[in-house]
Formats: sequence, C-alpha cells, structure tokens
Amino acid sequence: MSGLGDGANYAPETKASAVVAPGTFRFAAAHLDHGHIYGMVQGLVAAGGTLVSVYDPSPERVQLFLERFPQAQVAPTFDHLLNDASIRLIAAAAVPCDRAGIGLQVMRAGKDYFTDKSPFTSLAQLEEARSVVAETGRKYLVYYAERLHNEAAWHAGELIAGGAVGRVLQVVNLAPHRLAEATRPDWFFDKSAVGGILTDIGSHQVEQFLTFAGCAGASINHARVANFGHPHRPGFEDFGELSLTGDNGASFYARVDWYTPDGSPVWGDGRTFILGSEGTLELRKYTDPGRATPASLAILTDARGVHEIDCQGQVGFPFFGRMMLDCIHRTELAMTQEHAFLAAELSMRAQELADG
Amino acid sequence: MSGLGDGANYAPETKASAVVAPGTFRFAAAHLDHGHIYGMVQGLVAAGGTLVSVYDPSPERVQLFLERFPQAQVAPTFDHLLNDASIRLIAAAAVPCDRAGIGLQVMRAGKDYFTDKSPFTSLAQLEEARSVVAETGRKYLVYYAERLHNEAAWHAGELIAGGAVGRVLQVVNLAPHRLAEATRPDWFFDKSAVGGILTDIGSHQVEQFLTFAGCAGASINHARVANFGHPHRPGFEDFGELSLTGDNGASFYARVDWYTPDGSPVWGDGRTFILGSEGTLELRKYTDPGRATPASLAILTDARGVHEIDCQGQVGFPFFGRMMLDCIHRTELAMTQEHAFLAAELSMRAQELADG
Repeated sequence: MSGLGDGANYAPETKASAVVAPGTFRFAAAHLDHGHIYGMVQGLVAAGGTLVSVYDPSPERVQLFLERFPQAQVAPTFDHLLNDASIRLIAAAAVPCDRAGIGLQVMRAGKDYFTDKSPFTSLAQLEEARSVVAETGRKYLVYYAERLHNEAAWHAGELIAGGAVGRVLQVVNLAPHRLAEATRPDWFFDKSAVGGILTDIGSHQVEQFLTFAGCAGASINHARVANFGHPHRPGFEDFGELSLTGDNGASFYARVDWYTPDGSPVWGDGRTFILGSEGTLELRKYTDPGRATPASLAILTDARGVHEIDCQGQVGFPFFGRMMLDCIHRTELAMTQEHAFLAAELSMRAQELADG
Repeated sequence: MSGLGDGANYAPETKASAVVAPGTFRFAAAHLDHGHIYGMVQGLVAAGGTLVSVYDPSPERVQLFLERFPQAQVAPTFDHLLNDASIRLIAAAAVPCDRAGIGLQVMRAGKDYFTDKSPFTSLAQLEEARSVVAETGRKYLVYYAERLHNEAAWHAGELIAGGAVGRVLQVVNLAPHRLAEATRPDWFFDKSAVGGILTDIGSHQVEQFLTFAGCAGASINHARVANFGHPHRPGFEDFGELSLTGDNGASFYARVDWYTPDGSPVWGDGRTFILGSEGTLELRKYTDPGRATPASLAILTDARGVHEIDCQGQVGFPFFGRMMLDCIHRTELAMTQEHAFLAAELSMRAQELADG
C-alpha cells in the first residue's frame, strides 16, 4: 500500500458480478501517487474489467501495486500505455494538479480516462478538459468514491429514485477525514498541488448533493476554508464548508475537515442527512459509531416508521460495471460527463469564493 | 395540555433536587398560549420553585393548566400577578409578538421575567428590552429548551468545559420539528406573530452555538428561509438555515424545519455535531433513531476511542435551579443577560437577511 493513511487506501470489497467477459474491457493503471488508485482498480476488476498494465515513474510504487494486482504488466513509460491500442481506459491517481494534463493525453490517445477526484485543481483545467472531451468524444470519468464506492450512499440514490423520501429539500454532508500527517507526501500540504480542501474533498460532497437532490446546477451561498490547527503547514487547509442552493431550490451544506480523532476506528465518520418532503434519510457511511465498524447504514424515517437498512455487503458497487458499459456503448448511464464536471466546477468555484 | 403537538408540550422529568426551601422562590405562570409553559413551570417546580398563581385570559387554558399544576391559585387579571409583591418571577409563553410587551410590564413591576423562546419577534423589541433591563435591573430570561431542557445538550456543555474535545471549531445543529398542522393555532402560521422560522426555532440553535463554541459575538454568512410544501399557509416558513462565524473563528451551521416524518417516534430527531481540535461530540437529543426513544445520548470520540454516554435521566436540568439562584443573588451563573439577548439578536438578524 502507498502509506497515505487508512482512508487513502480505502478499497472496499463486496458482492460484485462481472458485467463483461474476461478480456473485453482492457484497462491500465498509471500515476499511483494517491492510494485511491487501489479502490479504483479494485472496483473495475470486481466488475469484470481486465487490468492489463501499470505505469508509474516510481519502481517502489509499482512494486507495491503488483503485490495487490500481480496480473498487471509493467509498462516502461506512460507512452507505452497511450500507444497500446488494446487498452480502452487508463485509471490514474496522480498528484491533483497533474490530473488534467494526464487526462488530455489519455483522451487524445483515443482512450477514456478515469481519474481520482478532484479531477482538476483549476477552472482553466476544467475548460480545457471540456473542450478536449468535445474534440475527441472520449470520457473524463471521476472516482467520486464517497458515493460510488459506498454502499449506503449508493443505496440512498436508489431509495430516493424510488420515491422513499418524496422531494429532496436538503442534503447535509459531514465529511471528516483522518490526517495521518506523518504518512502524507509533501504535495498533500501544497495548495498549488491539491487546489484546497473544497476543491479536493469538497468535490465528493457536491457530487453527492447534485445526485441526491437531482440538480443540474447550483448557486454558492457561502464557502469558507481555514487552517485551525496546523500553522506549521501554511499551505494546508484543515477545515472547509460550503452552502449551495440547487437549481430546483434544494439546499446543501457540507463540512469537510481533517479532524478525525485518533481514537476513531475508521478514517472518517462520514454522514449524510437527506431531508425530504415525505421522509428523511441518515447515512452512516463508514461506521456506526461505538457500535459497528465497518458499517454502511441507511436510516429511513417515513410516514410508517423508522427503518434501519444495513447496506454493508448488501448493495455492492454498481457504478463500476455501469461505467465500463458506458465506455463500451458510449452511453452515460453511470454518470454524465456534465455531472462529473459540474461537481468539480462548483467545488472549485466555492474554493475561489473561500480564498477571497 | 394545550394541543400544540407533542413537541410543544415537551416537559421532561428527570432527577432533580431543590435548590431552595419551599416558599422561598415564589413565581407565577401567565399567558399560556404555547405549551412550552408546561416545561418551563415543570423545570422551576422540580428545582424547588413555588408556583403561586396562574393567569390566562382563556378559562379553558387555565383549567388544563390546573390539571397539571393544581397548586396554582387562579388570578383574575394579569395585574393581580404584577401587583403581588410576594411573586419574584413571572413565567410566560405568550404569542411570540406579545412576549416583549409582557416582559416590559413584568420588569417594570419589579419582577424577573422568564419567557419561552423566541423572546422577541423584532429587533426593536430587543432594544426596548435591553433598555428596560438596564433601567429596572430585572432579568429577561429565556427558555431555550433545546439546550436547557435536554440532558445530552446540557452535558455537552459540561464535557466541552472540561476540555473533552479541545477547542471547538464547529457546531452543526439539525433541528427538525413535527408540524402537527391540525393542532396548531392560527397565530402559529402568521409570520407577524412568530417572526419567522429563524427568529423562532432558529434562536435555540444560535444559543447552543454561542454556548458550545464560547462565542460572545458572530457574523452571519448566509441565511435562508423557504416554504417548500405548505402553499396554503402563505405566511409560513417550513424550512430555514443559517451559517455563522463566531468571534473566535468557530463555525456554525443550523437547519431548522417542520418536516419530522409522521412515522418518527418523537417530535424531532434533533442532532448536534461538535467538531473539536481534539475530539468530536454527536448529540442524539431526543431519539436514538430505530433503537431507543426517548433518548438523550452523547457520543464522544477522542484520542482514546468512542464513548457512548447515556444522558437520559442521568444529567438532570441544572439550569432551572441556577436560574432561580441567579434571581435571588442577582448573579448570572446560569446564563448572562447578554447571552440570552445575543442569541435572539443573531437569529433575528439572520431572519432579516433571509427575508431580503
């Protein structure tokens, strides 16, 4: 593993069934800077993707990766991946500021790109990616793991789509993360490399709001970042918050922070509260504090009562299979390109507002 | 009971011991428009207060009150209470827009006033009350029940004061309430009578923030009110939110709403999340959803682990006794006048901002 702290390597396994035959969906992994690459590859492999090859400039990182995914051939250069016509998609978790540039290369090589979030660190990068997507017809897919790789969060989307809470009026996300400062690489604390806490872990939260509330746009009411407790890391933000109003009137508030207490059994006690016109949902995404860890729990309260829905190991991660089918069929059933970009855009605009 | 729905009559009983001898702290109840008067009187009586008399223009309301508190003598007019020199304090839960005027009468009669929140419906009322407090030296006390009459919330203050979470960086309050529309009097839906949802139930939330984060002031970042689902009640707001930054940098977000689902076993699944530099607190103030109701639970996560602290029946409601001692000794140990006023001021300023 890459030593980025327990959250960074979060790569849950659950029930999964392949959506394609072996060898049908050939992909590569590259730029393993963030441990999220493990979750990304795990998700694709579990859904039937065929991991063909891996590239990283660091032999040590490649070696660690091969311990988990020994089936990957080691590519000597990134160009070898770009030039391999059998590879349909490249998954990467580069240093955030480099993700856009890598994505442009991938798309211009005729492949789809699957990047860790945040997909960009600047609005200029986003605009360039929009134009290269239009130019190449390729996909710039984003691993918004806090929904896509979380069973309670995924199931919440299904419950909402089924009308369980009526109209969604508000979403609140509380997203603490464990800092594990000693395990983080230098770039993690460099704002020019990560873009800031709202751009980074804020993008997950906005993506969840847009999904749960069914918004195609939102305005930013308030955004704030702070470095409350790490003055020795001057470029670092350990706290962020943002408030949005969706284009359909739904309200959103999110807090992101690096203050998971050392005694927490999980990297973050992530919670989502969804207020609907006919019911409410609480998601305890990774832990049911003091009671069960890991956990992935949805608590639905509606006209009939309170329903505790244990999602752990029950829901799976349908996103990955659907995403691969989207790549094959050139559809957008797993997630639209515009949705993936909009979540990033709003989080970066919130970051700009907070930066003042 | 007054028929205002289950939350309105919330008057919990728990362990309590009298802080004064019988007959020492003589008080009256008047203006029983809101069922909160039951909780207010209950709290005072349990702490040793002596309920002397009651007044309300409605004989039916007086009769209901006497069923619960038969010791009260019925006063024929409010002036009888004002003119009774043996009465030290008058507790009242009038229609909100009338609370200030009643308070001025009480203070000018030389007595302390204990009103249900919200204590005011306009900033002009607050300014007048400030000046009459200064002029008379009397107290304008406020029943901010969501902290003062909740064991988990009270205990959170004790834990924070003891350093359990380090420096408080943020407080989030989610405060759903059951509408029980058919049980509400007309004034409840009249904005000129209640001042709006942030002025009303928002004031509880601001009061908790000021207490938990130890703020003596705050700026308002964002405030919004909406009527999402009750178009037949044009003056009514069924949703509100506000974001503050405290004078010490602490952040606050609160959502208030009238969307408790019918199947909820309690009038509101009130939650507080306190993010500290050294730990976190979650309060499940009235229910542990799907598991226990009533409940009053604090979940502390710190460097050593996750600690579930059952406060139900364990903490009591020390506010009431301390408040009575403050009245006797002219101290401000239970709550300062400025704190009570500031919570109201900020919630009304947020309401103004939201009203646009």
